[in-house]
Amino acid sequence: MISGSPQLAIQAVVEEFVREELSQENAHIAGAVWNMLDAGGKRLRPQITMLAARACEPDVPEDAVLASYMELIHVATLIHDDVLDNSDVRRGRESTNHAFGNRFSVLAGDYLFSWVFKKVTQSYASPVPTILAAMLAEICNGEVKQLRAAGNASLPPENYYEIIGKKTAELFAACAECGAIAAALRAGAAPGQQARDAQTVRALRAFGRSFGMAFQIRDDILDYTSTESQLGKPAGSDLREKKMTLPLIFALQDDGGELRRAVSSLFAFEDAAAHEAAHAFDTVLELVRSGGAIRRAAATAASYAREAEAALHALPLTPEREELCRIASTFRQFSF
Amino acid sequence: MISGSPQLAIQAVVEEFVREELSQENAHIAGAVWNMLDAGGKRLRPQITMLAARACEPDVPEDAVLASYMELIHVATLIHDDVLDNSDVRRGRESTNHAFGNRFSVLAGDYLFSWVFKKVTQSYASPVPTILAAMLAEICNGEVKQLRAAGNASLPPENYYEIIGKKTAELFAACAECGAIAAALRAGAAPGQQARDAQTVRALRAFGRSFGMAFQIRDDILDYTSTESQLGKPAGSDLREKKMTLPLIFALQDDGGELRRAVSSLFAFEDAAAHEAAHAFDTVLELVRSGGAIRRAAATAASYAREAEAALHALPLTPEREELCRIASTFRQFSF
Repeated sequence: MISGSPQLAIQAVVEEFVREELSQENAHIAGAVWNMLDAGGKRLRPQITMLAARACEPDVPEDAVLASYMELIHVATLIHDDVLDNSDVRRGRESTNHAFGNRFSVLAGDYLFSWVFKKVTQSYASPVPTILAAMLAEICNGEVKQLRAAGNASLPPENYYEIIGKKTAELFAACAECGAIAAALRAGAAPGQQARDAQTVRALRAFGRSFGMAFQIRDDILDYTSTESQLGKPAGSDLREKKMTLPLIFALQDDGGELRRAVSSLFAFEDAAAHEAAHAFDTVLELVRSGGAIRRAAATAASYAREAEAALHALPLTPEREELCRIASTFRQFSF
Repeated sequence: MISGSPQLAIQAVVEEFVREELSQENAHIAGAVWNMLDAGGKRLRPQITMLAARACEPDVPEDAVLASYMELIHVATLIHDDVLDNSDVRRGRESTNHAFGNRFSVLAGDYLFSWVFKKVTQSYASPVPTILAAMLAEICNGEVKQLRAAGNASLPPENYYEIIGKKTAELFAACAECGAIAAALRAGAAPGQQARDAQTVRALRAFGRSFGMAFQIRDDILDYTSTESQLGKPAGSDLREKKMTLPLIFALQDDGGELRRAVSSLFAFEDAAAHEAAHAFDTVLELVRSGGAIRRAAATAASYAREAEAALHALPLTPEREELCRIASTFRQFSF
């Protein structure tokens, strides 16, 4: 049972696992992983994996290893996210903190993915490995769609929801689902036949999926509303990458024409982060911040968070269900 | 049974598979895969997978799907190989044929890996998925070691053999091994208990491993001895990347001092492909070509090819065993 500070406890578990297992096999790649883990993060994914397992099977001991695998898959996607595009490098941004270089980053991420799959296929029965592989394919799918949607000022909200559903919510859904399935398997259910837990597993998957949507929308809001010191990265970085996120999409819906002109002018620059684009950039940022779009986006996040909480009603009342509910509720209480 | 031109037959099978299966799921990534498949290649990996299956279980129908997965894993590693390092871009090489950009290439490779793992975990029992995941981890391991060994003029041959064993031979070993195991499973052996075929599977894995060594050494020789039109890329590209391959390692062993001085001078340039490095580059190329190192490296490749052929003796005599033997034998007959 998780007690004390769950975040600290899980952080320690993941770090211990990386130290014990991964460092033994590949010290250089473990170094890149350390680098990412050191950079912070709330370890929400392993936390949800472990809570889902206990919410499903209260009597089965914690599976911190599966939870660590989920965090390592997340870390691998972050390492690959850090690979710069040629165009970024041309824009003079090669000096950002790419301590390891593109090639090493690609290899380190690939190694992590394959190492986790090796371990998972050795230790977890069907359908856990397939769920993880399918989830990773969906993340890539979402990222490709996001790449192609960049700079499209007419992107409908539906496409945005599809993108974040794939790139973010699928991983949270898989964390909750696999945590639950693995616990059911360890409790003695036959592989692929967790009938007695099927409803619980479905509910937890639904929880993870809705929670992931709320999580990403909140993240996209913070990119508009926070300061650099709060974010740990410059505010407006989505806009600089011409990413169409919900605050901008909603603001364009509400717009009388001024915002669309500013966005067109900004997106006409090959590099939206260039010095010459600064005026258009500031105008867009200001217009998105000052209208009602942020409140609408926050309401959407809150609605997904409520969906996540509602999904938990199918579960027996346990301290872990309560904790999942509490985590989701923080995503409907933030105000601007 | 494979008849006519095996290469053309397998090419058609892989392309059909990509068209039917992958294009349905993700057209953009299928486009990147097409791009790689169009660029040529001998489809040796799927060929060995299918021949190993038939050599192990002559009565089991061909499994062209598993063979296609092996080629797609190879294609995914090629797509990731194409990702440039920041430093390469700084050296003004961003104009090479990176039609898709680094970010898309990373995502396309990741998608392919995860899509193949999803399919394999759905369709193939243990230990096939684990062998593939472990193999991919070893490939990454080998590539990381190669990256770290670049520019180390004192690299011992043993380290070179370790690197190519991981980055190249493991995939051929897995092709032969998984082809055989999957055939045994389809013939009715229980998962993980292919006892009656254990010796055959071991022999085929050994074949693939030795063949892969011969294959990579030959490739590394050709980089020194061929012209650009023969290679489809500039000759000496390993040297330009400061890669320590067997011809250079052997030449340095035979050297009276002139080569080591030229190599030191070449590797002292941050960019061994820069205009100012041309003199040192030409000297190294000429010295490696003119000494006995190429012949020694060819003899080493031939010896691995003979090992591969010898491994096949454990198998019943079938047309497929003969074909595997013939393929390996071409790697001991090349002369310079």
